[in-house]
Amino acid sequence: MISEYADEILKGSTLAIARVITWLENEDERARPCMEEIYPHTGNAYIVGITGSPGTGKSTLTDGLTWQIRQRELTVGIIAIDPSSPFTGGALLGDRIRMTRHSEDTGVFMRSMATRGFLGGLAQFTQGATKVLDASGKNVILIETVGVGQDEVDIMRVADTTCVVLVPGLGDVIQSMKAGIMEIADIYVVNKSDLPGSDQLYSEIIYRVEQDAQMKNRKWVPPVIKTVAVEGKGEGDLLDAIMAHRKYLEESGEFLVKRRERTRQETLKMIHHELFRIIRQRLDKNSRIELMVGAIMEHKISPYKIVEKVVNEWLPLSNR
Amino acid sequence: MISEYADEILKGSTLAIARVITWLENEDERARPCMEEIYPHTGNAYIVGITGSPGTGKSTLTDGLTWQIRQRELTVGIIAIDPSSPFTGGALLGDRIRMTRHSEDTGVFMRSMATRGFLGGLAQFTQGATKVLDASGKNVILIETVGVGQDEVDIMRVADTTCVVLVPGLGDVIQSMKAGIMEIADIYVVNKSDLPGSDQLYSEIIYRVEQDAQMKNRKWVPPVIKTVAVEGKGEGDLLDAIMAHRKYLEESGEFLVKRRERTRQETLKMIHHELFRIIRQRLDKNSRIELMVGAIMEHKISPYKIVEKVVNEWLPLSNR
Repeated sequence: MISEYADEILKGSTLAIARVITWLENEDERARPCMEEIYPHTGNAYIVGITGSPGTGKSTLTDGLTWQIRQRELTVGIIAIDPSSPFTGGALLGDRIRMTRHSEDTGVFMRSMATRGFLGGLAQFTQGATKVLDASGKNVILIETVGVGQDEVDIMRVADTTCVVLVPGLGDVIQSMKAGIMEIADIYVVNKSDLPGSDQLYSEIIYRVEQDAQMKNRKWVPPVIKTVAVEGKGEGDLLDAIMAHRKYLEESGEFLVKRRERTRQETLKMIHHELFRIIRQRLDKNSRIELMVGAIMEHKISPYKIVEKVVNEWLPLSNR
Repeated sequence: MISEYADEILKGSTLAIARVITWLENEDERARPCMEEIYPHTGNAYIVGITGSPGTGKSTLTDGLTWQIRQRELTVGIIAIDPSSPFTGGALLGDRIRMTRHSEDTGVFMRSMATRGFLGGLAQFTQGATKVLDASGKNVILIETVGVGQDEVDIMRVADTTCVVLVPGLGDVIQSMKAGIMEIADIYVVNKSDLPGSDQLYSEIIYRVEQDAQMKNRKWVPPVIKTVAVEGKGEGDLLDAIMAHRKYLEESGEFLVKRRERTRQETLKMIHHELFRIIRQRLDKNSRIELMVGAIMEHKISPYKIVEKVVNEWLPLSNR
């Protein structure tokens, strides 16, 4: 039954892809043997991250980029990490409406993922879902996230090329560029570039990017691409820039370095996650954690002593 | 030597507070025994979170609120989680300049914390730093963070009262209110309420808050406070609202429930963190992780098999 799903994924079955991604989302144990089986068939897709604040038009841009990629006869997988609250749900609905353009196209798989109430680590889920799409034969995988917090930076580490979307008039670009963006951006996109202030924004980004490239002696200087996503303008240029970055990574040898580092981080996180999962189970058993919390609240023991005790019990010093 | 620091913290020494917070920041092992010693003296401070997008004037508001709290003869500790990149450093400098107003006041301790290159979990650092300030006798602790990502939501779980700062004209308030804000906001602040559009923003928030309160049958309906922080207007009202929320929490019994849940989460996270630290050490030994990554890259073994192997080695099934 389980290996059937793996087979179906390798054949590109949309139903099987959706099912296993749901397992990953719910941390369903059925995901593991299936992931193990498809793993040897991963590593072929090119992974593109698209990030930016709410209101920058990332969704429309992702849609346009998908169309461009399809024009080049490549298949596309999309994972949209959506921060909408489950009870407002607006953005989720928006995504669904938006993606109808490709919904009849078997060469496109789209999954929107609300972050509220999510059990596991978002970055870990994204990694897993990316592997499913990769194994299913999708040539390009687009990962769309909101914002530039540590979560998003972690998610973006999954990508080979990261595009940061900015728009004129949405707060202070300098603030955004401070918040870790310059460390992850391979390409900048000035979307809504028909709006007033976009030329100034464009020049400002170029100035900062060049300054940063000089200071850090960067070999790849991120290009700045102008788009008007609602009119379908500039998305071909964006795809060209992504392909140019891919070529740069491959020719410089950075591609392998990046993927090796990613494998390292992924493996560490998986070990971490699995150990913690087991320990949570143990702590929940017989309400052990509740007893601990009670003792801490009554100042009978400090949480530091509890940590020491628990960790020593399960990973004895003698065994370290 | 170490317990000397604990004693000094309990006496309110600024130097000792700063030193131990730096230890927490660097995950220096000297922090642990000191934290253990001060732990019985924590739980007295009232913790207030202040969050909002860049450009909402949180820093000025925190400064004004500090002044208001000092007028009521209470001491203040401030932890500002600052997302600026270390090489631009603008906002950090801004914070330092801004706080000179209280820099001669021994009743105020302020620590600005850049998030880039930070080793540990931000929420965990904030928890630790809060405990140091709490043990040092600060009556109110203000935690200031940018944004509304999962990181910030985690940071805000440390707070007893969370204030969300919004301003007119900074993007779409509905977007912000979707992004998990309504689940953490106890008080809304419309800052820069002298700007055009602020009345509309004010009404919109009230409408959404009431709708939400009705839908979820909330007992505490978050008030909306108007401020003009640069002119020092409305900060007294904000402090009154914070105190009213405190009274509500205490009288309804929610205060204890919240603190219990926080202790639970903190303890779990500390166990989690400590386990990961030990695992990293073990895996780094003899480059074991590098060998694993090499084998995965050559498709000799899947990461899932590696996880199974490592976890079984350290937490044998027989011991679960």
